[in-house]
Amino acid sequence: MLEQLKEQVYNANMMLPRYGLITFTWGNVSAVDRKENAIVIKPSGVEYDEMMAEDMVVIDLKTGDKLEGSMNPSSDTLTHLVLYRTFPNIGGVVHTHSRWATIYAQAGRSIPALGTTHGDYFYGEIPCTRGMLHEEIYGSPGHYEEETGNVIAETFQERDPDQVPAVLVRNHGPFAWGKDARDAVHNAVVLEELAFMAWQNQMANPFIPQMPGDLLDKHYLRKHGAGAYYGQSRK
Amino acid sequence: MLEQLKEQVYNANMMLPRYGLITFTWGNVSAVDRKENAIVIKPSGVEYDEMMAEDMVVIDLKTGDKLEGSMNPSSDTLTHLVLYRTFPNIGGVVHTHSRWATIYAQAGRSIPALGTTHGDYFYGEIPCTRGMLHEEIYGSPGHYEEETGNVIAETFQERDPDQVPAVLVRNHGPFAWGKDARDAVHNAVVLEELAFMAWQNQMANPFIPQMPGDLLDKHYLRKHGAGAYYGQSRK
Amino acid sequence: MLEQLKEQVYNANMMLPRYGLITFTWGNVSAVDRKENAIVIKPSGVEYDEMMAEDMVVIDLKTGDKLEGSMNPSSDTLTHLVLYRTFPNIGGVVHTHSRWATIYAQAGRSIPALGTTHGDYFYGEIPCTRGMLHEEIYGSPGHYEEETGNVIAETFQERDPDQVPAVLVRNHGPFAWGKDARDAVHNAVVLEELAFMAWQNQMANPFIPQMPGDLLDKHYLRKHGAGAYYGQSRK
Amino acid sequence: MLEQLKEQVYNANMMLPRYGLITFTWGNVSAVDRKENAIVIKPSGVEYDEMMAEDMVVIDLKTGDKLEGSMNPSSDTLTHLVLYRTFPNIGGVVHTHSRWATIYAQAGRSIPALGTTHGDYFYGEIPCTRGMLHEEIYGSPGHYEEETGNVIAETFQERDPDQVPAVLVRNHGPFAWGKDARDAVHNAVVLEELAFMAWQNQMANPFIPQMPGDLLDKHYLRKHGAGAYYGQSRK
Repeated sequence: MLEQLKEQVYNANMMLPRYGLITFTWGNVSAVDRKENAIVIKPSGVEYDEMMAEDMVVIDLKTGDKLEGSMNPSSDTLTHLVLYRTFPNIGGVVHTHSRWATIYAQAGRSIPALGTTHGDYFYGEIPCTRGMLHEEIYGSPGHYEEETGNVIAETFQERDPDQVPAVLVRNHGPFAWGKDARDAVHNAVVLEELAFMAWQNQMANPFIPQMPGDLLDKHYLRKHGAGAYYGQSRK
Repeated sequence: MLEQLKEQVYNANMMLPRYGLITFTWGNVSAVDRKENAIVIKPSGVEYDEMMAEDMVVIDLKTGDKLEGSMNPSSDTLTHLVLYRTFPNIGGVVHTHSRWATIYAQAGRSIPALGTTHGDYFYGEIPCTRGMLHEEIYGSPGHYEEETGNVIAETFQERDPDQVPAVLVRNHGPFAWGKDARDAVHNAVVLEELAFMAWQNQMANPFIPQMPGDLLDKHYLRKHGAGAYYGQSRK
Repeated sequence: MLEQLKEQVYNANMMLPRYGLITFTWGNVSAVDRKENAIVIKPSGVEYDEMMAEDMVVIDLKTGDKLEGSMNPSSDTLTHLVLYRTFPNIGGVVHTHSRWATIYAQAGRSIPALGTTHGDYFYGEIPCTRGMLHEEIYGSPGHYEEETGNVIAETFQERDPDQVPAVLVRNHGPFAWGKDARDAVHNAVVLEELAFMAWQNQMANPFIPQMPGDLLDKHYLRKHGAGAYYGQSRK
Repeated sequence: MLEQLKEQVYNANMMLPRYGLITFTWGNVSAVDRKENAIVIKPSGVEYDEMMAEDMVVIDLKTGDKLEGSMNPSSDTLTHLVLYRTFPNIGGVVHTHSRWATIYAQAGRSIPALGTTHGDYFYGEIPCTRGMLHEEIYGSPGHYEEETGNVIAETFQERDPDQVPAVLVRNHGPFAWGKDARDAVHNAVVLEELAFMAWQNQMANPFIPQMPGDLLDKHYLRKHGAGAYYGQSRK
């Protein structure tokens, strides 16, 4: 089932080494089919150059049960599921340990919006979650991964996940999402670029202010929303 | 029309990923034909590996109207036009979000001349513009992009754009130019290298002085102007 | 003898340039056959692109005598031998001068556990040895290299080398190990990644605390030990 | 004449882009034939991918006159000549603007010996020259380049150029040398690696001490001089 989505998820996973976001098997991409109530996700701990599209695992969106696949799904599957359930418009999710985003997560700091590169993709700072509590970390298998999703959801209670399509999980690393698997990876690549640049700026000037709000509005709204005029017409 | 210039502009655009100056579709190169009163520029938001020379768009230098091309021109076209109108000797313009130049732009700081690598290409510091005002950012479509050109022009009121062929637009990123599209990209590559090195130097020593003026003169004038003796004779 | 192990050691050595851990001939990988009481190790100072599997040198684990091979073994052979004798469970050892791990070694500092990337592989900080004493450095040929092994062994007197499979030798560089040659190199790659990220974090915040102990436990034990549930079942 | 040396110098020049030491045409390598009293050097300002071995230029070691070649020699030729005349044992010279060595040159600081990677190649710190005086910079064509050589020579009045085969010219960049062209480039690659690592260490700890003298002795003398026991026997 969902052979086309498997192909997309496989291709999106293969973008991770190509864009330098991962080492070894770190990282995983998934996508959802909301009509079928199922997600497709990378298997756990498989080498990228040995992986094939048919290795992708199909999981029930509601129950988390495996619907198809001979391998174990990514150990982060329950986190992905919480994100699909909580953010109704997203179609793809990616988790990596990309270097600079992970450094921010280790620092426990959000990535401030410092320039138009940021504003072209993210409408404001990219938040870092609070640290997870002992009772969130321990429990039955999968509890921790599900709570990881919950702490992300909590972080977005007063944010719009469609306008800020990424988060840093404290002491862990980034999750990004988008309208499909490819778009999620695209956002993860941009996130890493933004983290790199913002880190250098904050090292030099810890008190650097965020970019002016009107410039952020201009760049975000130039590419997103009703009045967008960037790129080629999609009609 | 301008098929040869399209080829040159296409080739110069393709240098951007090769020299690591861009991610995805960020960045655009143009060139001018001053006899035809027209510029050739990259289309907006097209993937580099799908782009072809015939996709380049021809724009009227005076009016900004599209003269030829099925796609929308780069959203930064109006900025390019202002530069061609204001700097009479330049033949090519490039805009990127290259990492270290963008970091300087986000910091709102000019790049000081610290060594002969700088002096071989730029005769003094590479300036950062002032921040743009609210009324420059908002207005009818294209107003912001045109004002971006104007704030660059303002920055060069007391500088020679032929001797300092690049600028940092505050909270945004670099524009560079040159005698043609290829030369503009060449300068953008050098700019990124200079930004990288100067940033490290200023991080270690915020009070680092600019290089001695006589050494700067020597290196700049060794390669540029009447007494140049670097490279092979072009006669 | 040990032709299969030579092949493995050769392949593991060839991973070093592929993962960017070495420049020129810096670095060496070995593996042990505990039944044969012998190790296989890279020859000294040979270019990677001229090296072949049959160039690997076989050394007696107890005596250090050369059992087979036309070339001199790596000058670090005696250090490798001490590690195999002291750490009974390890099957492979690697030494590199990888950039960020070496920077930590030059700083004389251990690499703190700051995030789950660390916790997935190393159960706590990666220690830096004390500096070597004059009488450890000087003496008959091989004395220094053997004492390098001894100072590593001393560093692990109260640590478990199976849970922390790497060390920084002060003013020198990293050694890593694992269940075989490939696993040792895998750990060396992770070590370099961790060193890179932790260095940035400590530069920004010299007082950054180690990650919470319960999160470290969770991630290390999720992948290692009896209750592990990461990856595919190996049964 | 000197066809074989031209081939060597060409090959050594082509190592510069391969090892990431240069951008565009920055950098040049030469070698000397002390019997023929001539050097072979790269032509000035030629693209690396268009250059051929027969483009190498032959220059008289004593007079600086061009003995063979249709192109102008590197603009740094007179600096190379001074080094060959002053350092009697060297066979090859290379000049680059490699990033981290250039950053040190721009900072006007020597590269301290912080670890065994340094001690394996350089017997103590890699010095930075004093700044050049106005009268050294100005004068007839070639005067500046010759004085650049002289200020390097001055820097080595109380140093052994065979034990410290590189220098940083203040506000400019590195020169390295060796027993032949290939060895000079080899040293330039190591220099860049050392500059990178030492810079990070000094950023974190400006007061970091040099490595212990006995460890430096051990590593340098293990690879160089009468008692060397690293690598394969060259007999």
